Amino acid sequence: MSLMSNLSTSMISSSSSAFLAPTSFNSSRSQSVSVPVKSIKICKCVATPQEQQQTGLKMVLCGLFVCFEAYKTKVSRNSNIAKLQAGYLFPEVARRRAAHLLKYPNAQVISLGIGDTTEPIPDVITSAMAKRSQALSTLEGYSGYGAEQGEKALRVALASTFYSNLGIEEDDIFVSDGAKCDISRLQVVFGSNVTMAVQDPSYPAYVDSSVIMGQTGQFQKDVEKYANIEYMRCTPENGFFPDLSTVARTDIIFFCSPNNPTGAAATREQLTRLVQFAKDNGSIIVYDSAYAIYMSDDNPRSIFEIPGAKEVAIETASFSKYAGFTGVRLGWTIVPKQLLFSDGFPVAKDFNRIVCTCFNGASNIAQAGGLACLSPEGLEAMQEVIGFYKENTKIIVETFNSLGFKVYGGKNAPYVWVHFPGRNSWDVFSEILEKTHIVTTPGSGFGPGGEGFIRVSAFGHRENVLEACRRFKQLYN
Amino acid sequence: MSLMSNLSTSMISSSSSAFLAPTSFNSSRSQSVSVPVKSIKICKCVATPQEQQQTGLKMVLCGLFVCFEAYKTKVSRNSNIAKLQAGYLFPEVARRRAAHLLKYPNAQVISLGIGDTTEPIPDVITSAMAKRSQALSTLEGYSGYGAEQGEKALRVALASTFYSNLGIEEDDIFVSDGAKCDISRLQVVFGSNVTMAVQDPSYPAYVDSSVIMGQTGQFQKDVEKYANIEYMRCTPENGFFPDLSTVARTDIIFFCSPNNPTGAAATREQLTRLVQFAKDNGSIIVYDSAYAIYMSDDNPRSIFEIPGAKEVAIETASFSKYAGFTGVRLGWTIVPKQLLFSDGFPVAKDFNRIVCTCFNGASNIAQAGGLACLSPEGLEAMQEVIGFYKENTKIIVETFNSLGFKVYGGKNAPYVWVHFPGRNSWDVFSEILEKTHIVTTPGSGFGPGGEGFIRVSAFGHRENVLEACRRFKQLYN
Repeated sequence: MSLMSNLSTSMISSSSSAFLAPTSFNSSRSQSVSVPVKSIKICKCVATPQEQQQTGLKMVLCGLFVCFEAYKTKVSRNSNIAKLQAGYLFPEVARRRAAHLLKYPNAQVISLGIGDTTEPIPDVITSAMAKRSQALSTLEGYSGYGAEQGEKALRVALASTFYSNLGIEEDDIFVSDGAKCDISRLQVVFGSNVTMAVQDPSYPAYVDSSVIMGQTGQFQKDVEKYANIEYMRCTPENGFFPDLSTVARTDIIFFCSPNNPTGAAATREQLTRLVQFAKDNGSIIVYDSAYAIYMSDDNPRSIFEIPGAKEVAIETASFSKYAGFTGVRLGWTIVPKQLLFSDGFPVAKDFNRIVCTCFNGASNIAQAGGLACLSPEGLEAMQEVIGFYKENTKIIVETFNSLGFKVYGGKNAPYVWVHFPGRNSWDVFSEILEKTHIVTTPGSGFGPGGEGFIRVSAFGHRENVLEACRRFKQLYN
Repeated sequence: MSLMSNLSTSMISSSSSAFLAPTSFNSSRSQSVSVPVKSIKICKCVATPQEQQQTGLKMVLCGLFVCFEAYKTKVSRNSNIAKLQAGYLFPEVARRRAAHLLKYPNAQVISLGIGDTTEPIPDVITSAMAKRSQALSTLEGYSGYGAEQGEKALRVALASTFYSNLGIEEDDIFVSDGAKCDISRLQVVFGSNVTMAVQDPSYPAYVDSSVIMGQTGQFQKDVEKYANIEYMRCTPENGFFPDLSTVARTDIIFFCSPNNPTGAAATREQLTRLVQFAKDNGSIIVYDSAYAIYMSDDNPRSIFEIPGAKEVAIETASFSKYAGFTGVRLGWTIVPKQLLFSDGFPVAKDFNRIVCTCFNGASNIAQAGGLACLSPEGLEAMQEVIGFYKENTKIIVETFNSLGFKVYGGKNAPYVWVHFPGRNSWDVFSEILEKTHIVTTPGSGFGPGGEGFIRVSAFGHRENVLEACRRFKQLYN
């Protein structure tokens, strides 16, 4: 019995067992576990039928071997999810960072990789969340289920703070637990029978969620692309704005500006062309403006600054990079009433249905924080932290410039896009990690158009950014 | 120009315009707006081509009329979402409540409908959340992106508090923003090519999310069911446990115990049969245990108390009804490593991929609250609030019993399932609302098997529950 349990545990935890043919247990969890014939006796004498059932292992005699087969359901794995390549990019970066730390337990690793905020949230905002938390223990302050679309006061404040004079009303705004989550909810709204385009490179959630929903074909290794996705190449040569004359019509166009990872912000003229392109094609733009607050140029902060955009565009946004809410979780999405499917049905009505059925609103405490962000003191405090990250960006840009690299982004986004012409991004990522203990993000993780680049995030404590730049200089001088 | 804007606004806000043929603007947003021919002159003299483009209205001459057509994209509406009937149940109940308040602005409406918690959260829990909120403004206390699967300390505490000795490990547990959200994420994992069964009646999110993912056929009005869903009828006659000998094999079996809405809790023997049924069929059970803490009987609190369940079951759970977290948003889902698709691939790996790609973890503040819930003081405080709601339940049960109704549930769940034989649930709902200003939930909203019942929720302040019971007695005595 104890041996049998041992066997079962080994398989489950993917850890090796010193006792029973360890090598056969190191294989993936998804494999059946084969035990060489010499183990038969051991197994036979410890396993009773009842135990077999409980551990889920079935003994099967096959030729010279006794195989222990785990119980499998008869439910087929979702073939769309099976198309996904490796892990989602950022957990994969985190995995390599963890492996590096195992190799160099004493390394002073600096993370300029995942784009995670590092500076404390201004007190005016955290105090509002603390107050709301505490109030939940009182009769007057308690609140249960809120509106799935978000608290009215927050929706009103978002409309007046970011979309004043743009014709976006409070009820066009859906408050959420973050832009990434909303992107997936939008994909659920669109379903599997739509085609989509993305900037290449771009934030990987667009492509991955499209694959998951079944909008794409298989991954094509030779071109590093999924079939049935239109990759709109964005390069230094085209100023990181796609040549729309070569872009095929798709139902959905994901467009991120300021762009993650290139840092490029589209101009008013470019966005006007994009909106016209969508209108001519009857496409819907999903415009990701998560970094709009980092813009230094006089480019549009919202797609809705472009006339006519309300009929062809959705906009997602987030407090994550505005107020350090990456852990608090709060974002919003705008689906204008004017946006209609081909049969005239408003997209907002279906999005609302999905929000009500698949989601239950953002945390009321986080929403109190969001409201505080939009107070005059909150806005000022937010801008201060953003100014700090923008100084980081400048330091990183100057460092790579001084080393002779071609550097893009940085001016309108907290990301610096560094060119390593002719080199493999993951190789550069590994070289930097191995030699400087700095985590970056390989450009190819954002699509084939990112090959030869790395993304350096400007989120970090000042001393870490300065130390990272010293190490970059040592490595590449 | 101003007239054209006026026209546009009228259409957008669905409000009526006194100026331009008001009746034509009162139609659904999704309709094209038709303006009678007498309006031609007005429109012609105010609209320039550019303005037409901006407002999205196109003038089309068709026979005797000039029609203003709203711009439509060429993106087809998701045909699965189009299958959904009316709104999601609870927003529909809320809509009727709001309409009632418009009709009776001074009515003292009591809500025993939506199942929303009403009592303050114990201070030991809110203090932990306030502390975590405030700490986010400090260098030491700040945290950004957390693990998508939840903070390790919380996962460890969940495993030891609720699944001790059941073989559920910390890494089998995924912390989330709530069970409803996890149900949808699970559906995304399963995809469109699975079949599913539900208890009838049951919590509507199972069926609705199945429809959205394309697992079902059209709604069949004659039987009030979607095609391709197996409805497992649960009635007083079968003790609210389905006759499995008549249930067709499906890939997925949603099973909620204690059940929402009937309040019935399955016994150990029943759950053993259910697990065996799943095993024989190679099905996956999605076991919703959101109300387990309300159980008075000695029935299993977790499906994993049943031997072998780890190979065929997933369990969702939530802090919503445990700790009044309906607004704070925190839940968890267990996907055991032992649960495998037919090709041997672990379901947990795909769920993890969806959690990482479509979600970014629950709010760190909510997680601090969850951890406090599981401290000895937190558990004790939680039980006290739950005891209070259970007293409410008893009062409601006794009231309906005294009125001669057949009443089910109440003992193991905060819901009382009251039988009105031969009557239409929505009629009973309306009668109660109209005559007593009490909001309940119509049984048929949970499936055709709920017809003839209403669900009365025991969440409420004591004085409201007592007052509601007085009104029930007035109405039905």
